[in-house]
Amino acid sequence: MTETLFQHGTLAALVPGLFTGTITAGELLKHGDTGIGTLAGLDGELIIDAGTIYQVNHEGKVRVVAPDETIPFGNVHFANFGPAQTLKAASYADLQAAVRAHLRSLNLFAAIRLTGTFKHVTTRAVRKQTVPYPTLVATADDQSVFNAENVMGTLSGYFSPALYAGAAAPGFHLHFLSADHQFGGHVLAASGVTGALQLQTFTNFELHLPADDAAFRDQDFTSPQIVADIERAEH
Amino acid sequence: MTETLFQHGTLAALVPGLFTGTITAGELLKHGDTGIGTLAGLDGELIIDAGTIYQVNHEGKVRVVAPDETIPFGNVHFANFGPAQTLKAASYADLQAAVRAHLRSLNLFAAIRLTGTFKHVTTRAVRKQTVPYPTLVATADDQSVFNAENVMGTLSGYFSPALYAGAAAPGFHLHFLSADHQFGGHVLAASGVTGALQLQTFTNFELHLPADDAAFRDQDFTSPQIVADIERAEH
Repeated sequence: MTETLFQHGTLAALVPGLFTGTITAGELLKHGDTGIGTLAGLDGELIIDAGTIYQVNHEGKVRVVAPDETIPFGNVHFANFGPAQTLKAASYADLQAAVRAHLRSLNLFAAIRLTGTFKHVTTRAVRKQTVPYPTLVATADDQSVFNAENVMGTLSGYFSPALYAGAAAPGFHLHFLSADHQFGGHVLAASGVTGALQLQTFTNFELHLPADDAAFRDQDFTSPQIVADIERAEH
Repeated sequence: MTETLFQHGTLAALVPGLFTGTITAGELLKHGDTGIGTLAGLDGELIIDAGTIYQVNHEGKVRVVAPDETIPFGNVHFANFGPAQTLKAASYADLQAAVRAHLRSLNLFAAIRLTGTFKHVTTRAVRKQTVPYPTLVATADDQSVFNAENVMGTLSGYFSPALYAGAAAPGFHLHFLSADHQFGGHVLAASGVTGALQLQTFTNFELHLPADDAAFRDQDFTSPQIVADIERAEH
């Protein structure tokens, strides 16, 4: 079986502020049941789990996204995780080290999932922007930061090889959703992580570009600053 | 209809000398009937046309590749070209300018084909290397260069956005095969180009990585020199 990570949009497109939704939530789900992303206008952080898309907005509220809402950037795949290691009271650095140790290769895209208990999780959610859209770095500076203590939930997202920076955020890109669906977002920090780490490695990376979006077609993406801005905004 | 450019391997893997064939010719053809590539050991230049794979070796000989031969790097798609412009006695710079003018976007992958007459074509073909493989730059320096005058044939290959340098050769990557199958290779120069330029733009770029190749999995691709070496070897 071919294992494919599907991506709509290219991360570089967010850097100059191309936040228009270019795929519907319903269409994205045809390519996977698990993933991460954001809504049009960079409206919050998406966690896709078992075929349902959850949004954490900049107020920290969690809701289910409707099939006709639109997405400028998202990654999905069909979950087929394998067990890697059980973590006990691990730091976020320990977690990342465990992922790196168990990945088949740092040159393949992989999905990461850990359902368990977290002593502390810090997340962020970006605020919905309006036209004319600002840059990704300006938007990331306009984010809300949330903290939770002793929370049960699922950490999920992807590891992308450094070679594909520009298309994807190099390294780790992880989101969180609590089991009670009251807390989540883009993970900035975590500690006291206890649970079973699961990984899924992909042979295929399918990049689906918004060819019908004139702003995307006409944008100049040749600046070397793009990858530096992705690093600043996404990590 | 979704238009997909399929790629086996990542161009960065050739830079340190990962020339092992990791997909068979027969398997590659399941993903397209048109394309370019090279054989295991960086053995010559491949031109894939109407479902047949032709190899131009370093002696300039053209032959048909068998289904069980293996390929470390190749691009294929199912031909569905549209007309762009008729060129008359165009220089290679004119040809590239015409492609850029007619592409829907410089941010999308596209295929290029021109069947016609060429006053002059200069090609190269790399020589088959043996284990332990040298680097891509050393191999490119060990190439044969061929010239043809007043030749009929087909120029074909791809335009890749600069953003995906590392995965692909940024910009143009064109091969040539004469109508009589006696001349071809990786195009270094052309002049007096007369014929109908055809283009095909892709919404999807499907990157299929050699996950079962241990040398690929273990290679360090983080050096910024990789893209510079691709530029030197492929243009």
